[in-house]
Amino acid sequence: MAEGGDGAGGSGEDRFIARFLRPIAGSSAALGLLDDAALLTPPEGCDLVLTKDAVVAGVHFFADDPPASIARKALRVNLSDLAAKGADPLGALLALALPKGTPDAWMEAFAAALGEDTERYLCPILGGDTVSIPGPVTITLTALGSVPKGAFVPRTGARPGQAILVTGTIGDAALGLRLRQDGKAAAFAGLSDEQRGHLLDRYLHPQPRLAIAPVLRRYAKSAMDVSDGLAGDVAKMLAASGCGGRIEARRVPVSAAAAEAIAADAGLFRTAITGGDDYEVVACVPHALVHVFTAEAARVGVPVTLIGETREQPGLDVTDAGGHPLDLGAGSFSHF
Amino acid sequence: MAEGGDGAGGSGEDRFIARFLRPIAGSSAALGLLDDAALLTPPEGCDLVLTKDAVVAGVHFFADDPPASIARKALRVNLSDLAAKGADPLGALLALALPKGTPDAWMEAFAAALGEDTERYLCPILGGDTVSIPGPVTITLTALGSVPKGAFVPRTGARPGQAILVTGTIGDAALGLRLRQDGKAAAFAGLSDEQRGHLLDRYLHPQPRLAIAPVLRRYAKSAMDVSDGLAGDVAKMLAASGCGGRIEARRVPVSAAAAEAIAADAGLFRTAITGGDDYEVVACVPHALVHVFTAEAARVGVPVTLIGETREQPGLDVTDAGGHPLDLGAGSFSHF
Repeated sequence: MAEGGDGAGGSGEDRFIARFLRPIAGSSAALGLLDDAALLTPPEGCDLVLTKDAVVAGVHFFADDPPASIARKALRVNLSDLAAKGADPLGALLALALPKGTPDAWMEAFAAALGEDTERYLCPILGGDTVSIPGPVTITLTALGSVPKGAFVPRTGARPGQAILVTGTIGDAALGLRLRQDGKAAAFAGLSDEQRGHLLDRYLHPQPRLAIAPVLRRYAKSAMDVSDGLAGDVAKMLAASGCGGRIEARRVPVSAAAAEAIAADAGLFRTAITGGDDYEVVACVPHALVHVFTAEAARVGVPVTLIGETREQPGLDVTDAGGHPLDLGAGSFSHF
Repeated sequence: MAEGGDGAGGSGEDRFIARFLRPIAGSSAALGLLDDAALLTPPEGCDLVLTKDAVVAGVHFFADDPPASIARKALRVNLSDLAAKGADPLGALLALALPKGTPDAWMEAFAAALGEDTERYLCPILGGDTVSIPGPVTITLTALGSVPKGAFVPRTGARPGQAILVTGTIGDAALGLRLRQDGKAAAFAGLSDEQRGHLLDRYLHPQPRLAIAPVLRRYAKSAMDVSDGLAGDVAKMLAASGCGGRIEARRVPVSAAAAEAIAADAGLFRTAITGGDDYEVVACVPHALVHVFTAEAARVGVPVTLIGETREQPGLDVTDAGGHPLDLGAGSFSHF
């Protein structure tokens, strides 16, 4: 244990911040990372939305993933939470726990990618902490966003008889992870290189749906980001809202690559809707508003698909074309 | 690597949050920890102050420290940053990375102590994340505070000719750590059990100086919390402010226990002013305001001591009674 509290060393930490992080801390709120704290004047008439996700090497990403990809994922999983709540990013705080001996080149690539992403998503790094860890790289990001007062989109606002819609396509990331773990599996044999690349990229580089935030604020009664698997996350949202629902399996949007893999191995459909890491948004919208919601989402470049409906009876069914609940494997669905 | 992203497991994490964290999430902003994000309406006319500190087992605390102490330290080191900036706490987000198999009893004790502290310091847990880590317990806390618009106390506001003052006593925690590591050292032989207890407790349980926040807002031009050692932190603050200064060694306030140890081993003075973990506040105040600053600090129960003065010439000297810079050991002071 290092005397003085910080294993990274006082002045060592300062140099580290100066070299790698100060150049990407663009906002005046960050005070040049020269202070102990960031100072932020919240936009007038707004509520703040706060989210915090930690990612750990060997758990949420592979330790040998490119540092640029790790940086992007650490930021984007938080931005995905903001997007689903209808919030626009204000900034983020970064805590970086690094093993001793992490190469400068690793940090350079990490910081450069984080800098690019903070510009792309208008989410400057406001401050944070860097410490050493006798363990895996651990990155904790706290993202702050704003919504006009009262416009926060909760997880608890679904009511029976609403449409359930989801952005983008589901299952690419989970199949990308499967492909990475077992690239020789027969299910993937028919995929083109481009299709393989698509699945792998979707696992590595989530695309937070920030563009849809203002549309959610206007039309969605309930929303959350899909990070732990579509079926489980929808079940969670409906339970939190005090209702239940049904998803029609054939309506769940999948990419051409995912469709190819599922056609070769039908069991991968379960992987697709339970696997997680989608970072899409699922929302409940009154039926009368589905048309305008879909049109306005399209206008900001986000495809949305109607996949089911809420109901009074608790629980979530994923149904086949005949309306019968699919048996998606005992145990794994016990928490629905 | 767990499919689905989160090594703690989706529903496992939910149960964990429900059992241990929901009971201590008292604020309506936390939305019962049932949402992906917290919602906070910032107080009107206020700026936000944001700080984030990570603590790692084996680096910032001993892995076998009582979980209650670990929880308190994780929160309080962040509150100390808020206090030094003149901010009142609004709430905190917690990211908890725990090794698999962490006993329920550990979590219960951790959550109970955190719950007590969040009530004591009016700093509710608003949200966060729990993940598993194939490594040491790692706790990241982001604390939010508020200051009246424009009242943030920066690190950069010191100017030549101001008084340097510090709260409480310096060195207890560093000596407590030393005592813990080498309890049989001759320097500690003359200490009473009560004195030993004092030093050990100061290392384990920082006392954030939140009471002085409004006084700092009114009178301090520059301030920071003392976490990495008084000498280094003052040097940092003055460098960030573009000036230098002098601390008189004999004025640095020490407890009776620390004085006893330093009397037995004069070298421990260096430990006291460079060791860190004090979580006191050092501030620069115009001379004309020192009296009223000291009186108002006393009124809120915080003793402050004048320890030196700022100057134009860069750098920091720690001087003996004759005004000569102390030789505090080559190398260790190179970054002043």
